[in-house]
Amino acid sequence: MSAIPDFHAVIPAGGAGTRLWPLSRAGHPKFLLDLTGTGRTLLQGTVDRLQPLAAGILVVTGTRHADAVAAQLPELGARQVLAEPSPRDSMAAIGLAAAVLLERHGEDVVLGSFAADHVISGTEAFERTVREGVVAAQAGYVVTIGIRATEPSTAFGYVRSGRSLGLDEAPSAQHVEGFTEKPDALTAAGYLATGEYRWNAGMFLVRARVLLDHLAAQLPALAAGLVEIAAAWDGPDKQAVLDRVWPGLTKIAIDHAIAEPVAAAGGVAVVPGDFTWDDVGDFASLAGLLAGGTLGDASAVQRIDADGSLVVTGDGRTVTVIGLPGAVVVDTPGAILVTTREHAQAVKRGVDGWRAQGRDDLL
Amino acid sequence: MSAIPDFHAVIPAGGAGTRLWPLSRAGHPKFLLDLTGTGRTLLQGTVDRLQPLAAGILVVTGTRHADAVAAQLPELGARQVLAEPSPRDSMAAIGLAAAVLLERHGEDVVLGSFAADHVISGTEAFERTVREGVVAAQAGYVVTIGIRATEPSTAFGYVRSGRSLGLDEAPSAQHVEGFTEKPDALTAAGYLATGEYRWNAGMFLVRARVLLDHLAAQLPALAAGLVEIAAAWDGPDKQAVLDRVWPGLTKIAIDHAIAEPVAAAGGVAVVPGDFTWDDVGDFASLAGLLAGGTLGDASAVQRIDADGSLVVTGDGRTVTVIGLPGAVVVDTPGAILVTTREHAQAVKRGVDGWRAQGRDDLL
Repeated sequence: MSAIPDFHAVIPAGGAGTRLWPLSRAGHPKFLLDLTGTGRTLLQGTVDRLQPLAAGILVVTGTRHADAVAAQLPELGARQVLAEPSPRDSMAAIGLAAAVLLERHGEDVVLGSFAADHVISGTEAFERTVREGVVAAQAGYVVTIGIRATEPSTAFGYVRSGRSLGLDEAPSAQHVEGFTEKPDALTAAGYLATGEYRWNAGMFLVRARVLLDHLAAQLPALAAGLVEIAAAWDGPDKQAVLDRVWPGLTKIAIDHAIAEPVAAAGGVAVVPGDFTWDDVGDFASLAGLLAGGTLGDASAVQRIDADGSLVVTGDGRTVTVIGLPGAVVVDTPGAILVTTREHAQAVKRGVDGWRAQGRDDLL
Repeated sequence: MSAIPDFHAVIPAGGAGTRLWPLSRAGHPKFLLDLTGTGRTLLQGTVDRLQPLAAGILVVTGTRHADAVAAQLPELGARQVLAEPSPRDSMAAIGLAAAVLLERHGEDVVLGSFAADHVISGTEAFERTVREGVVAAQAGYVVTIGIRATEPSTAFGYVRSGRSLGLDEAPSAQHVEGFTEKPDALTAAGYLATGEYRWNAGMFLVRARVLLDHLAAQLPALAAGLVEIAAAWDGPDKQAVLDRVWPGLTKIAIDHAIAEPVAAAGGVAVVPGDFTWDDVGDFASLAGLLAGGTLGDASAVQRIDADGSLVVTGDGRTVTVIGLPGAVVVDTPGAILVTTREHAQAVKRGVDGWRAQGRDDLL
């Protein structure tokens, strides 16, 4: 496998992963955790997957986690970790990376953005998809990766594909007809029946210059601010410029800032991704990823009439689950969570409850 | 309330309370625990209840727990704690107490035996019952206390009452027609319908001399052994006699040794006990005793869609239960148990499982 010339991977590493609380917390968010029991964190796994393909990798994260990110990725070097002074949503994060890449590597850079906290398996299919995506990006498109929908999930947005782009080097790339927000179950089932819809996993590729040009057209102040910061990033004025410009940047998701308006104008393509993808969005999802249902020390877990239960062990304590198929038990130093896979989406309510009680130490 | 002359309470303190694992363990059994959140252990609560009524109190326990028992009951003094070298079942324990009481206090002693790990409320009703029981015991009967059955429980044995004893000072005392083992649900419902059956809670009163005479008739070797040990108990030969005699004592429950054969001969009476009694036999029972459902720090527990769940907190860790009404969550230093009130009887299977894996450190 050889690196793709001019292709730089950008990994936005943010988000606490509230639905994985108390495993994932503000102080040690989901992307810094080894959730698959492989010995590599989700962030490390993301870098492992991209490093053979990319000419370079940038991680964009908050100042709070920059040291932890750099420590987990000694092979990258601290210069490849961009620390945001405060969270300004995904457009600022990825736009900053695009502008820095243009400064450092010039006009031909294609960036590919991949979340730091997803799990992907199927290396060859992933590589094929990325290579086609780069080709389509070089042709000027904003390219999203459309994941084959294996069920009518209501947890993801969908992307609808249209006619082929007609690119020899990217034969499966198609025009995007549009994006949808998370649908209800009936609508999702309808999507699957058509065969035209895929999950929008938030992975996309685009020439850095194309991205910034779109941004300049849609949100010129934001684009100008990012360009100004990027110009100062590797120099002595970085902190002063950041202090002055960053707090005023528009907070907006890249989907709303770029993907949706540009799709409406015909500038977005989709490359189908037929690898296995999981956003590990909640404990039900995590349970599905773990063969034995245990994250941690399997010898410390005893299940009696508790098929399909997920147990996360901690601190050497044993966990005994009796009569609760599908239970979720998460043991962490300060907090134990007990729920079910069915209630995986309700974990956020527990976090909200502790916050309302002022127990920020638990969050 | 005045003490009843010649009445001595005997408290057998044994049994690990396996169905309350991992709260109750071999090293800190149920009777040494504060399961009601009152600040007093079940053993202390038992002594508190009996002290105003009794001329003296003896606790019979294993050598392993003798120090802990004495430490919890400084008001008794170590002489009132009889330590058994090894468990020889309830007949040996109570028979030893009877023989020691005869040595120390003479022929008029009436003993009342009360388990160390039950919860009783209703002080006045309890006192009335005990006073009648002493009167019936002084008349020569083995007197059991029959608890009003509030449901057709299959967890307890039953005692069937017959005609009145006709004692002026014990007007509610009746002859016992017989004892039954734990019945099935249908049989239990039939018992309740007759109005003649009460729960056999294992509490009984009897003159120490009468008990030993019955024992001498039924199991003369056991009676002789206990008398020999008791004669040496407060003297220099205690240990030598114990070492020689104790290991050979017959292991038998007092119900089989005395209560059943003597009842068949018309020598057993029952006094109804209309106080509230709970044997705290499992977590379902414990949940019923705790108003808020939490044993420990209620501020460390958050329940979301988890009505009726029992949480036992430990070590300052928080517990969040979501979407599991009737759940049981027990957090102890080395072991977490997650189950439901419905599965309270299955907790023993968890203990068996850890034992099979050689995890005696957890038991």
